[in-house]
Amino acid sequence: MSLDEHWFSEPLEPEGVAFSLRVTEKLHDERTAYQHLEVYETARWGRLMLLDGCVMLTSRDNFIYHEMMSHPALFAHPDPRDVLIIGGGDCGTLREVLKHPGVNSATQVDIDEAVTRASERFFPELCQANDDPRARLLFADGVRHVAEARPDSLDVVIVDSTDPVGPAEGLFGEPFLRDVRRALRPGGIMVQQSESPLFHSESIIGALHTAMGNAGFDTVRTLTFPLPSYPGGWWSATLGGKGADVTARRPQGAEPGFETRYYNGEIHAAAFAAPQFCRGAFGAG
Amino acid sequence: MSLDEHWFSEPLEPEGVAFSLRVTEKLHDERTAYQHLEVYETARWGRLMLLDGCVMLTSRDNFIYHEMMSHPALFAHPDPRDVLIIGGGDCGTLREVLKHPGVNSATQVDIDEAVTRASERFFPELCQANDDPRARLLFADGVRHVAEARPDSLDVVIVDSTDPVGPAEGLFGEPFLRDVRRALRPGGIMVQQSESPLFHSESIIGALHTAMGNAGFDTVRTLTFPLPSYPGGWWSATLGGKGADVTARRPQGAEPGFETRYYNGEIHAAAFAAPQFCRGAFGAG
Repeated sequence: MSLDEHWFSEPLEPEGVAFSLRVTEKLHDERTAYQHLEVYETARWGRLMLLDGCVMLTSRDNFIYHEMMSHPALFAHPDPRDVLIIGGGDCGTLREVLKHPGVNSATQVDIDEAVTRASERFFPELCQANDDPRARLLFADGVRHVAEARPDSLDVVIVDSTDPVGPAEGLFGEPFLRDVRRALRPGGIMVQQSESPLFHSESIIGALHTAMGNAGFDTVRTLTFPLPSYPGGWWSATLGGKGADVTARRPQGAEPGFETRYYNGEIHAAAFAAPQFCRGAFGAG
Repeated sequence: MSLDEHWFSEPLEPEGVAFSLRVTEKLHDERTAYQHLEVYETARWGRLMLLDGCVMLTSRDNFIYHEMMSHPALFAHPDPRDVLIIGGGDCGTLREVLKHPGVNSATQVDIDEAVTRASERFFPELCQANDDPRARLLFADGVRHVAEARPDSLDVVIVDSTDPVGPAEGLFGEPFLRDVRRALRPGGIMVQQSESPLFHSESIIGALHTAMGNAGFDTVRTLTFPLPSYPGGWWSATLGGKGADVTARRPQGAEPGFETRYYNGEIHAAAFAAPQFCRGAFGAG
């Protein structure tokens, strides 16, 4: 059957696949300085934010993404105090980072302030930590911010970006990754969203492993998680360590000690298991 | 945007979500004695089989499903010799089961012979083991087959069924599960496809845990895996042990010793990690 006009569809044309949600109302439509931002009310997924026609997040499943972009990296680090988030304008990753009581500062640098303003309005639950005294929200170019960052000043850098085309393209390149590594303290960890294991293992994920290695990261590992609203329903993040084991859990197997909905001690270890067809790209086994 | 007529879409209306594949040609359309069977050529996913409009399998991602329906159960058992598959008419699970050299007999009981005939024609790679002398293909009612099975005669029973409505409804009920347990030898294991962790944890998966427990299975655990072409892109299987630890891996962490594309020793353990929001339904922690 085909879908009528009550559905929003995001086709990923090169892969001949599409994801659709039944929508009930368009709540917002804005041409920002950088991208086309839309927000819909859906029938069963809460609200839906699009950037340039691509699903950024839904109320229903964003918890998986935000938890897996933050907690594995923060719990792999023995004492994460200073955290930088590049992108992440919806503030969901920031909220998760600030659940860690040891974090002293969490700076979010997104190029597009309009995304944060829309998130405050339509996804207020993601912005609960924006007023935390440890939070700093900057609206600026993340590539430049990292290039100008003080060396050895950060424990964890989270690159919570859009796809590696358009505004986010520079965030996947070796010069940026070198700058991230320079800004990290010894033992520091970076984590970057790295697209679909099914569609991009041999391309984006493999290339990111090479680029992180060239940029001087000692250990590079990819974790995966379900993400129903992203193309293929399965997503990845790639971690790089500056003299750090990025897969450690400190203490091992421990529960987070705060509320989560997807992440827990078991999931931490499990997420790093590389499916057989991904082993080459993931640099595992 | 909306999708034109070159896409096949499967909406899951109660969840307001749809999955679509770009199709290039309809290869087959048949009203079998039990269901509506269609096969399409797709642009990027090889062939697509539908039963009553629902995706049964695609050439591109069925390997994940078939490997995860068979190898965790067979490798949890110390010495699986006699295996029964209920459903599984596409023969992909049978092929995986027969990769285990210790298996003496693998019997597949699907009610609809037309599914197997279509698979032989359109998915010949899944039917490679159909002529194995250890394979027996029956076209009969799986519920009755299990009710009439000799007690203590099987090591592993795999219920590779369609959704728990229509022909497959009885395969989720306690009477059937009791019969499966009776047919298993001590130490035997059953595994059943159990729908989406996102959509069905509190309904189908939770109910199946209760029913398996009531039917006398000592340990009941659910594993999950990505399955891009099924609703939500994330699927589950639930295992029950008759005096057996269904999560064991014998030997622990070992590689399968034959070719797989998703499953390996790491994935075996990882698949049983219960996401935090599923812990109640999965009976874990």
